Amino acid sequence: MKIALIGAGNLATNLGRALVEAGHVVCQVYSHTKESADALAMRLGSMGVNILSEVVTDAQLYIVALKDSALAEVLPTLVKGREYALWVHTAGSVPMDMWKEYGLKHYGVLYPMQTFSKAREVDFAEIPFFLEASGKVEMDILRSLASSLSRNVHEADSEQRKFLHLSAVFACNFTNAMYTASARLLEEHGLPFDAMLPLIDETARKVHSLHPSDAQTGPAVRYDKNVIDKHLALLDKHPLYKELYELTSRIIHETK
Amino acid sequence: MKIALIGAGNLATNLGRALVEAGHVVCQVYSHTKESADALAMRLGSMGVNILSEVVTDAQLYIVALKDSALAEVLPTLVKGREYALWVHTAGSVPMDMWKEYGLKHYGVLYPMQTFSKAREVDFAEIPFFLEASGKVEMDILRSLASSLSRNVHEADSEQRKFLHLSAVFACNFTNAMYTASARLLEEHGLPFDAMLPLIDETARKVHSLHPSDAQTGPAVRYDKNVIDKHLALLDKHPLYKELYELTSRIIHETK
Repeated sequence: MKIALIGAGNLATNLGRALVEAGHVVCQVYSHTKESADALAMRLGSMGVNILSEVVTDAQLYIVALKDSALAEVLPTLVKGREYALWVHTAGSVPMDMWKEYGLKHYGVLYPMQTFSKAREVDFAEIPFFLEASGKVEMDILRSLASSLSRNVHEADSEQRKFLHLSAVFACNFTNAMYTASARLLEEHGLPFDAMLPLIDETARKVHSLHPSDAQTGPAVRYDKNVIDKHLALLDKHPLYKELYELTSRIIHETK
Repeated sequence: MKIALIGAGNLATNLGRALVEAGHVVCQVYSHTKESADALAMRLGSMGVNILSEVVTDAQLYIVALKDSALAEVLPTLVKGREYALWVHTAGSVPMDMWKEYGLKHYGVLYPMQTFSKAREVDFAEIPFFLEASGKVEMDILRSLASSLSRNVHEADSEQRKFLHLSAVFACNFTNAMYTASARLLEEHGLPFDAMLPLIDETARKVHSLHPSDAQTGPAVRYDKNVIDKHLALLDKHPLYKELYELTSRIIHETK
């Protein structure tokens, strides 16, 4: 199958790599900067373009991995003359019906729920893929493609995918924000962030066998006001972290 | 060395187990309820008591693992007649100097930085222990004890320990609160929390090789208002989670 990859960001980079490793051919990479398009294309043995009219017209599958706000800018021009192909996007929060606006017949969603950074290669085998498609044939194609990358392939409709994405923001993006706060507080006092890693690992491992509400520990769960007040005083120079500490402690205590 | 364990909560339970596994003898377990004292004592091949005057007077080391607010209630009575021994507490936020109030000469802090639940056995070998002691002899005893449990033993003064504990609250307790929010949102929509585990694991693994501020992904880092507004609308029924979403997104965006 001839695949064109629209986008060269974190997700496109990791997905492109995984596709090529699994033996697929990515015939072209589009990005709105030539530099990004070429950088990824080179890694994929592909060609980079940054002009929409130069995107190949004969791909069988267009995988669109752009930030949500770029979709409406790029797609009206891009889709034109390429309506026969299968089009998928990779976004958690964008409903599949978006494709109808562009007069397409074959479309769907290929949503790999993972955190991607260009600097880090991710093992795709365990990544949950959530698929949605306009029909049975399209779903079969997407399932076969996703299954060549991962053992963890599911179907999810647009409504479920919205909540998967929202939940992933809490479990991943906001978790990482807690790590960052922790790192900053340590570094300001000459302590290495590495000291936190065993604790971070155990916190993640723990919820494989306990529900997170049963795994909760710390001063907020028992509402130890003595400790909480001391911690708030230590955060006087960080008003946003202080607000975060107060709110999260309240949530832990009130929703336990 | 004859050790008395004062406390039978999550930390005391896990520490007691690790001590016994490493070949130490815990001669007694105190808790203010007989039931908890006996339950832990039975697992440690020890004796449980819930009356302060029945605590042995001939232990060489008293390890006090009580919640911070209980220290001032229990210690004045408990220390009396046992001043010759080495006394340590296990709390991140309590300064070592606390012991001076009780007229002790041999004292210190044994702070294992980890999240402990009674329902889950933790491998102590990797847990960072942070030690502080009133003198060289006391430090040698604590270092030898901690090294029999873990390969990861450090010294830290009371000021550093305050920030270690505060940072641990962010990296562990608040991280777990994000997992809980994620689990609740999924479960309300008939989706299994297990689907998040590959993402949770990768989020933790990632900060072993990238600084968390470089590992940050998601709509907040690029301030994708389109996605953020959709997510806030999905949280209408959860005002506290909505507030948490707004605040954490602001923190991610403003401190990147």
